[in-house]
Amino acid sequence: MPRDMSPDEFREHAHKAVDQIADYLRDIRQYPVVPKVEPGDLTADLPASGPEHGESMDAIFADFERHILPAVTHWNHPRFHAYFANSASAPGILAEMWMAALNINGMLWKSSPAATELEQVTLDWFRQWLGLPEKQFGIIYDTASISTMHAIAAARERADPSSRTEGSTPNLVMYCSEHAHSSNEKGAIGIGIGQNNVRKVPMDLEFRMRADVLRNMVEQDVAARKKPFCVVSAIGTTATSACDPTAEIAQIAQEYGMWLHVDAAYAGPAAICDEFRPLFDGWELADSIVINPHKWFATPVDLSVFYTRHPDILRRAYSLIPDYLVTAEDSKVVNYMDYGVQLGRRFRSLKLWFIMRYFGREALAAMIREHCQWARELGDRALLDGRFDIGAPIPFSLVCLRLKGPDEKTFALIDRVNKSGTAFVSPTALNGKTYFRIAIGDIKTTRDDVDATWNAVTEAATALL
Amino acid sequence: MPRDMSPDEFREHAHKAVDQIADYLRDIRQYPVVPKVEPGDLTADLPASGPEHGESMDAIFADFERHILPAVTHWNHPRFHAYFANSASAPGILAEMWMAALNINGMLWKSSPAATELEQVTLDWFRQWLGLPEKQFGIIYDTASISTMHAIAAARERADPSSRTEGSTPNLVMYCSEHAHSSNEKGAIGIGIGQNNVRKVPMDLEFRMRADVLRNMVEQDVAARKKPFCVVSAIGTTATSACDPTAEIAQIAQEYGMWLHVDAAYAGPAAICDEFRPLFDGWELADSIVINPHKWFATPVDLSVFYTRHPDILRRAYSLIPDYLVTAEDSKVVNYMDYGVQLGRRFRSLKLWFIMRYFGREALAAMIREHCQWARELGDRALLDGRFDIGAPIPFSLVCLRLKGPDEKTFALIDRVNKSGTAFVSPTALNGKTYFRIAIGDIKTTRDDVDATWNAVTEAATALL
Repeated sequence: MPRDMSPDEFREHAHKAVDQIADYLRDIRQYPVVPKVEPGDLTADLPASGPEHGESMDAIFADFERHILPAVTHWNHPRFHAYFANSASAPGILAEMWMAALNINGMLWKSSPAATELEQVTLDWFRQWLGLPEKQFGIIYDTASISTMHAIAAARERADPSSRTEGSTPNLVMYCSEHAHSSNEKGAIGIGIGQNNVRKVPMDLEFRMRADVLRNMVEQDVAARKKPFCVVSAIGTTATSACDPTAEIAQIAQEYGMWLHVDAAYAGPAAICDEFRPLFDGWELADSIVINPHKWFATPVDLSVFYTRHPDILRRAYSLIPDYLVTAEDSKVVNYMDYGVQLGRRFRSLKLWFIMRYFGREALAAMIREHCQWARELGDRALLDGRFDIGAPIPFSLVCLRLKGPDEKTFALIDRVNKSGTAFVSPTALNGKTYFRIAIGDIKTTRDDVDATWNAVTEAATALL
Repeated sequence: MPRDMSPDEFREHAHKAVDQIADYLRDIRQYPVVPKVEPGDLTADLPASGPEHGESMDAIFADFERHILPAVTHWNHPRFHAYFANSASAPGILAEMWMAALNINGMLWKSSPAATELEQVTLDWFRQWLGLPEKQFGIIYDTASISTMHAIAAARERADPSSRTEGSTPNLVMYCSEHAHSSNEKGAIGIGIGQNNVRKVPMDLEFRMRADVLRNMVEQDVAARKKPFCVVSAIGTTATSACDPTAEIAQIAQEYGMWLHVDAAYAGPAAICDEFRPLFDGWELADSIVINPHKWFATPVDLSVFYTRHPDILRRAYSLIPDYLVTAEDSKVVNYMDYGVQLGRRFRSLKLWFIMRYFGREALAAMIREHCQWARELGDRALLDGRFDIGAPIPFSLVCLRLKGPDEKTFALIDRVNKSGTAFVSPTALNGKTYFRIAIGDIKTTRDDVDATWNAVTEAATALL
């Protein structure tokens, strides 16, 4: 007795889904970016138990449209400017369709040669586009949090090889700026380094790590018999997209034998444009780098790229091969499961391949340039307007603004813009004051979208002041 | 200037992709399960660099069919019996299409109310189906490796609350059976417990953990001033699908204050059938449980379900809330990012919801019963045949066999079956001897498929003996 939907029924329902999805993408601007729901609304609309007997796909799709879509925050909306704006481009969605149908787990070369080799090939294409001169070992993880956790684990493995067998030792210390992403600290907590052993290095007035202070902190820790083992340089912080002085940090890392991890999760793709390369100066010396194509490279979540020049160390940190995962090809191939916590690995390289081929480097570089241009223009408009303070320089496509006056005004502006449905912006704190962030990063965003967002912001300002 | 494909072009290409995929699912049995490629074959077929200018979607799809598909190991093939067989059912694929288009990151309630609430609702439906009596906190991670890593981290947090700030301490000891999945050891290495602090408890003749030996080992460790903090009970080990005596282990865990983690990644869904419940006896006492719907529940990778009765402890282990992730709703909602390493979270509950509704409990239970019945029948056929040894009891849908005689014969049989293209089986070692595993778990598998696999096995045996 066949239990799954027949291929013909699948064909019928999948064609319907495609039309639904194409309509959604066409009409995306008609949806409020942030849904108008309260906590518990959706839960109250759904049954308390699952069905004993199956239901029709039509009924499920109808409930999806009736109950689920109205409670969705539309990350794929061109005026989603919160966090780091991202987008699922059309070729990325097409790739995800095939990824789901193939249902591959690329843990071993043998478990899918295509997954392993396409990952190697596309990551080398991407490396070339980014201008990283040296061959690197590349691997795709799900998220930057996981990429960074692996970086810290590899750093620990290099600094204290006994940690694999004996456990973490309490004298290891890592460094990142006060604005480094929370995933760095979370990674350190997770792998047993301890939050107190994560030093937050102060920043200069433009929110870049002070390399001179880093050096002092490292020297103090060495004098106190601590072991500095890892330093994170952010190229494009989450709060302001500031770029730490990676070349200087690399120098200090080398002197003190620290692993240098570069967090370019958001801004990394900008390195495909020559004019942004100076901001990346020094990253070619990194021991590891993380870049998320699922942020600013039109790729559906999840796809985080990790490069390292020391695959042997990463492998030593994590490799464990049980009897049931031994294959005849092991000596001749990369088995990606050896380089990470996760055994299950989706066929994520397929979407990178679709996207790099469909757009080509030139169009993706043009997208990045345009996003940055629009962000700088927003900064200019805010200055001209006179009612806003700009929180930080705008090296990439993120603008941080606040209404002059008390924080409450800015919180109220954020709330008003988000409730308008026109755009979604998110808060951050700089020097103790609240700002709102407008991040541009969706491949579908147009200048008209940026204008609409700006109008929503200025209308809110007018209403509030 | 629009940069992404237009919605109408997307519609056209997505309809083509649907037809390609429906044909693929219809013709899936015509593909060799394991592709006939050598390491490097695909790499040699692909350009060394990515394109400067974009290419047509038709060209990309054509290359996909010409180069990628022939190098794919077909995990969605009904005669994929290696590792744990799984399947991307049709409703699961339909859900993945929408997941890609929505491109949600469900890190916060605010970042998508639908993702958070549907995760809570579907995981409670699933809990009820599994017969877990008590309300549990449920969360979806990507893989069982990550679920288990979080279990060990929560156990560490409970046993040694200072580890969050000070780092792991070297006296913590965890326990699992000799056949526990490698992810347990990897998790312990990853979070800084150290491989030497993972005790492998010997098994009885049917590969179940010896609870009496566990007790002795714990007592010895306590006497040696170590701190037993975590024990893993496997319900359905990877090597043989054996079930550790969870109720007895739970008793010992309670006496010594250890966190009990139940690894039911593969076999968990069998608990929706009443007759399998005795094998799960005691799991209701667990501090955490992992079950992977992406294994035996017709769900495309990735979707790993994690239940815990102590969300407060899990949260304490991992919560870190930077300024840019504060929302007005924080006090009223669950923000799933607080319960894990990963900030990025796909809208995975959507596929569980589609699948539970489309099939209903009864049909999924019938699938599980049938798979187990077929596995037992394979055992009977092997006995009748006389040329095979059966490696272990068959509580679920996994059969472990070997050809009588030296290991080389069994390796040769595995190679021959896999090269035939008919089926994919994988090796394991039991009591120092090599066996091959036939796992049944694809919703599309029929009795005819099982017959075809068995014919491939017996033909290989005849050729080799």
